[in-house]
Amino acid sequence: MSAAPTVVIGSAGRRLYLVDWFREAFADFGLDGRVVVTENDPTSAAASYGDIGRTLPRYVDPAYGPALLELVDELRPAVFLSVNDYELMHLHVATDLADRMRERGILVPGVDRVWQLGCADKLRMAQLLEAIGVPTPRTVTGDDEAGIAEISAASESLVVKHRLGSGSSGLALVPADGVRAAINAAIDSAPAPADGSAPSGQDVVVQPCLPGLEHGVDIVGDLREPGGLRAVLARRKVRMRAGETDKAASVDPAPFVATAERIARAAQLTGLIDTDMFLAEGGEPSVIDINPRFGGGYPFVHLAGADVPRYYLARALGLEIDEDWREYAPGVISAKHESVRVTATEG
Amino acid sequence: MSAAPTVVIGSAGRRLYLVDWFREAFADFGLDGRVVVTENDPTSAAASYGDIGRTLPRYVDPAYGPALLELVDELRPAVFLSVNDYELMHLHVATDLADRMRERGILVPGVDRVWQLGCADKLRMAQLLEAIGVPTPRTVTGDDEAGIAEISAASESLVVKHRLGSGSSGLALVPADGVRAAINAAIDSAPAPADGSAPSGQDVVVQPCLPGLEHGVDIVGDLREPGGLRAVLARRKVRMRAGETDKAASVDPAPFVATAERIARAAQLTGLIDTDMFLAEGGEPSVIDINPRFGGGYPFVHLAGADVPRYYLARALGLEIDEDWREYAPGVISAKHESVRVTATEG
Repeated sequence: MSAAPTVVIGSAGRRLYLVDWFREAFADFGLDGRVVVTENDPTSAAASYGDIGRTLPRYVDPAYGPALLELVDELRPAVFLSVNDYELMHLHVATDLADRMRERGILVPGVDRVWQLGCADKLRMAQLLEAIGVPTPRTVTGDDEAGIAEISAASESLVVKHRLGSGSSGLALVPADGVRAAINAAIDSAPAPADGSAPSGQDVVVQPCLPGLEHGVDIVGDLREPGGLRAVLARRKVRMRAGETDKAASVDPAPFVATAERIARAAQLTGLIDTDMFLAEGGEPSVIDINPRFGGGYPFVHLAGADVPRYYLARALGLEIDEDWREYAPGVISAKHESVRVTATEG
Repeated sequence: MSAAPTVVIGSAGRRLYLVDWFREAFADFGLDGRVVVTENDPTSAAASYGDIGRTLPRYVDPAYGPALLELVDELRPAVFLSVNDYELMHLHVATDLADRMRERGILVPGVDRVWQLGCADKLRMAQLLEAIGVPTPRTVTGDDEAGIAEISAASESLVVKHRLGSGSSGLALVPADGVRAAINAAIDSAPAPADGSAPSGQDVVVQPCLPGLEHGVDIVGDLREPGGLRAVLARRKVRMRAGETDKAASVDPAPFVATAERIARAAQLTGLIDTDMFLAEGGEPSVIDINPRFGGGYPFVHLAGADVPRYYLARALGLEIDEDWREYAPGVISAKHESVRVTATEG
């Protein structure tokens, strides 16, 4: 009656390494497990890469929820994780689908609703972080003239970006006298608000440009005890490309642990979230972004020795593991490269 | 006295598949050949991936030329190819390094100096294509008010981009009434001209937005007889990401052959160049861009069956091959994905 132990990865897109690493984790435990990939685009690189591939309707389609529940009832996965911010928003905020999977005994890593909303809204995120005493850049909207003037007076260069953007969407780094033009340009390219009105200064945020080096930090919470910190995995960004880290060096996580602990507890974290933090020498890290899922920076710590998929499987399946899944060597530099695979044949 | 047959790939960067495919081509011929990768960044994904990796100074460094010639005199490659536009410009236009390698009997694929210059300058390119009767969008600079008015009158939407840009640098698609703002934004983000002056309307081009579907087309010239067309390899772009084709479907090259023939002859082409062409149903293709090197679209025809590395080796080493290196199946859809590798360890 019991099927093979199963993990579902939603919207894996270009991240085939996650499929590989969960498969390797099953093998490490001597288990004949299955990695299921769900995609709405059957020609995406990941769609045909899992042990089982399933096409789901797009998350905006009313058929998405029923199809997802039917799929988990059939395959009975131990863990369901998604790599897509919009799908996560739909699962955790717009619907109760995450909870309905959890009622079925499926682990669905993530943060609570309030923090999930904050992850998509840079103004809310700054407010959430301030409320728990975690340093974050002062953040005001593009129509807050007094706030912008204050930031301009205190900081030589400013960051302008889309309030609801992801990656470096709408991003500009400008001197104070260029901030108005940058805000206007960011408004022009901002996604339209849900109410159908034209984008305005409310849809853009302005921040001071921070000193220090930008780091990617994965915060890993216990999969079964919300808010319990289990690992912090950090890398220094060496080069960016198209809003993602293209090259990075693994670093000692010690400077980030206290911040990670506060966020994990406040957000009632389970599983891995990807964050961006600036760290100036001798200072406290300042958090600039949180993505509540495996991000593009996880490979830089995995290749240095960490193994979160192994932790996920152990905790989901009740297996014993030692602590070395969270150990990695600092100073390992890795770089991304292009790979291509055939995904379909026409007609 | 004779070393192993050798190919040098300059600045391979993120394109590790080229190293793999040249290696496989050597193996197909039963040869124990070497693929040498040169890079100025020893931590790039490709730098440590070849059979031999060599660090060269950056092309702007006066030490670059002597180091390159020393390297080819030592390794005696049959072919030297670069995947970087700036390095190509330096080899073929700013210096006589390409010719000095050719004098040594090394095949250095490419186009003649005039076309190499055109590949970096979208206004020149349009003029070169018009002169040989190849359709290309009307192209004017951002300060040509009369030209912009003419294009606006004839076309509902306009393309604005950097004149000397690559990929989608500075790209905006705008209606006629948005063209002035788009030109100003593109000027603001344009690279500074070589004479140190501020970027102006001269550094931006305006074109009409073309109807039809965008295709990537590789034109392959004979490696030893400049201007002789040997293959045309085409794919329809399905999705773009960060200025590169992320997903594409291989297509029958027939509609592109006459255009390819004209370009190959005029440019005195040897080896592969990557082009972008719009094709409207029943129409002639219109060329919008030429990159004089292997581009990010080649994998989409290689995975469908084409094998240009095998052709390069055969022609360079005087080996017999049949014509199937240029045959591929139409309708094969492929998608790119992320891979990551460790490239170095810090101190």
